[in-house]
Amino acid sequence: MIIIGERINSSRKSINEALEKKDRQFFQDEARQQEEAGASYIDVNCGSRLDSELNDFLWLLEVIQEAVSIPLCLDSPDPKVLAAGLKQVEKKPLINSITLEPERYDNVAPLLQGGAADIIGLCMDDTGIPNTWDKVLENATGLVEKLGDLGLDRSGIFLDVMVQPLSVDTNNGIQGLNSIEAIMERFPGVHTTCGLSNISYGLPERFLVNRTFMVAAMARGLDSAIIDPMDKKIMTLIRTAEMVLGRDEFCGEFIDAMREGRLEI
Amino acid sequence: MIIIGERINSSRKSINEALEKKDRQFFQDEARQQEEAGASYIDVNCGSRLDSELNDFLWLLEVIQEAVSIPLCLDSPDPKVLAAGLKQVEKKPLINSITLEPERYDNVAPLLQGGAADIIGLCMDDTGIPNTWDKVLENATGLVEKLGDLGLDRSGIFLDVMVQPLSVDTNNGIQGLNSIEAIMERFPGVHTTCGLSNISYGLPERFLVNRTFMVAAMARGLDSAIIDPMDKKIMTLIRTAEMVLGRDEFCGEFIDAMREGRLEI
Repeated sequence: MIIIGERINSSRKSINEALEKKDRQFFQDEARQQEEAGASYIDVNCGSRLDSELNDFLWLLEVIQEAVSIPLCLDSPDPKVLAAGLKQVEKKPLINSITLEPERYDNVAPLLQGGAADIIGLCMDDTGIPNTWDKVLENATGLVEKLGDLGLDRSGIFLDVMVQPLSVDTNNGIQGLNSIEAIMERFPGVHTTCGLSNISYGLPERFLVNRTFMVAAMARGLDSAIIDPMDKKIMTLIRTAEMVLGRDEFCGEFIDAMREGRLEI
Repeated sequence: MIIIGERINSSRKSINEALEKKDRQFFQDEARQQEEAGASYIDVNCGSRLDSELNDFLWLLEVIQEAVSIPLCLDSPDPKVLAAGLKQVEKKPLINSITLEPERYDNVAPLLQGGAADIIGLCMDDTGIPNTWDKVLENATGLVEKLGDLGLDRSGIFLDVMVQPLSVDTNNGIQGLNSIEAIMERFPGVHTTCGLSNISYGLPERFLVNRTFMVAAMARGLDSAIIDPMDKKIMTLIRTAEMVLGRDEFCGEFIDAMREGRLEI
């Protein structure tokens, strides 16, 4: 499972405050802890800091790269911020994100040429978030084809089917799961990813709903997630699901995690 | 989800003791509580009482039927016990179980004629428990065809793919999941069912492994399970998974369960 650690986002109060103080130590600890907890990428997002996003972003990249050996996930609504960040990273990053909306696509696609970055592709176009499975697949197909034409290897493409809340339509969960499975079957080598907060919006016991959906999605092929790797419960479930799905040889990772006290139920 | 409540089994100490005392009230409470917790069938097994199984079984059926309105699951290694039980039940029961082993098949099949009972079919034959997916499917096909020839409707067939421990082979989980999905696709109308203890045999944190496997199996099509319906945590997960999988209109069951305090995380 490819874990994209989502903690460093300036929309979180503690992150915003540490950014105000340019608290180097705080961010290096944050990043290191995520790496130790099993993150594959550290997502960096300070899009909420409208007046200083670019400077804050570049400062964060420098500080975080000093602390960890895993690559970063450059996360911004502003393609100029992504472009500047791309020049500063040492390891090939993931970019969050591209869509088929013409303006977004045209601004982000040039950053990916020559394999400079891997990419999270949201399966939406200028008609908005799709509300049918066919449309999700149509958008996924469009992204895989266009990104392929740019020269990206499929292993650098992370498609997000943009799961919508169950509280809006009870079929949103199963539609998301069917889409994940269809993408993984139709485009071998491509990754699927998702965040976990949308599915449970408007429901009680959201963590329970999120975790259950995560296991179901993994069983249908999901191989990446944008989550908080410091959440031991979700990491425990991911580790257990990996084992149950035959992705943990001799159950070694699971048993090690148990022995080292990293499991939390 | 069709829940087969597995608590009334004489291999459990408390059940065996209550049987010794012929404690009518105890068994009626046990059965009622399982029905209230959401069981679709009450499994009755006193196979460990070798000397008195038949008498104990018939007594249990009488006592339990007085207490609940759901049907029973007649569970015995001895076809004669099943036959005697079948004569005593008021509602169409489930029989646990038939296999393709010639002797077992020939002894149990006559009980099913004319639609007298639904049946749990273990996907094994006289060569034992299969260790390949192809063999599981071959046995499933054999059972569906032979039971169909007997006149059973597919909706009365519950196939158990006999999931083997992950600790023996890390692929046992995914093999089981693939088999469940293949059966549900190949034989529309048939149910799949499973118990939850085999998968985690020999591993630590068995409940965690069992629960994770259950959600993964439901995501791949499992629509019945042989479990303890008084285990609020597993029932919570089943209820949540049903919602996530689009089987809970307007999320009504989930929200009701939450309001009534029936969820436990």
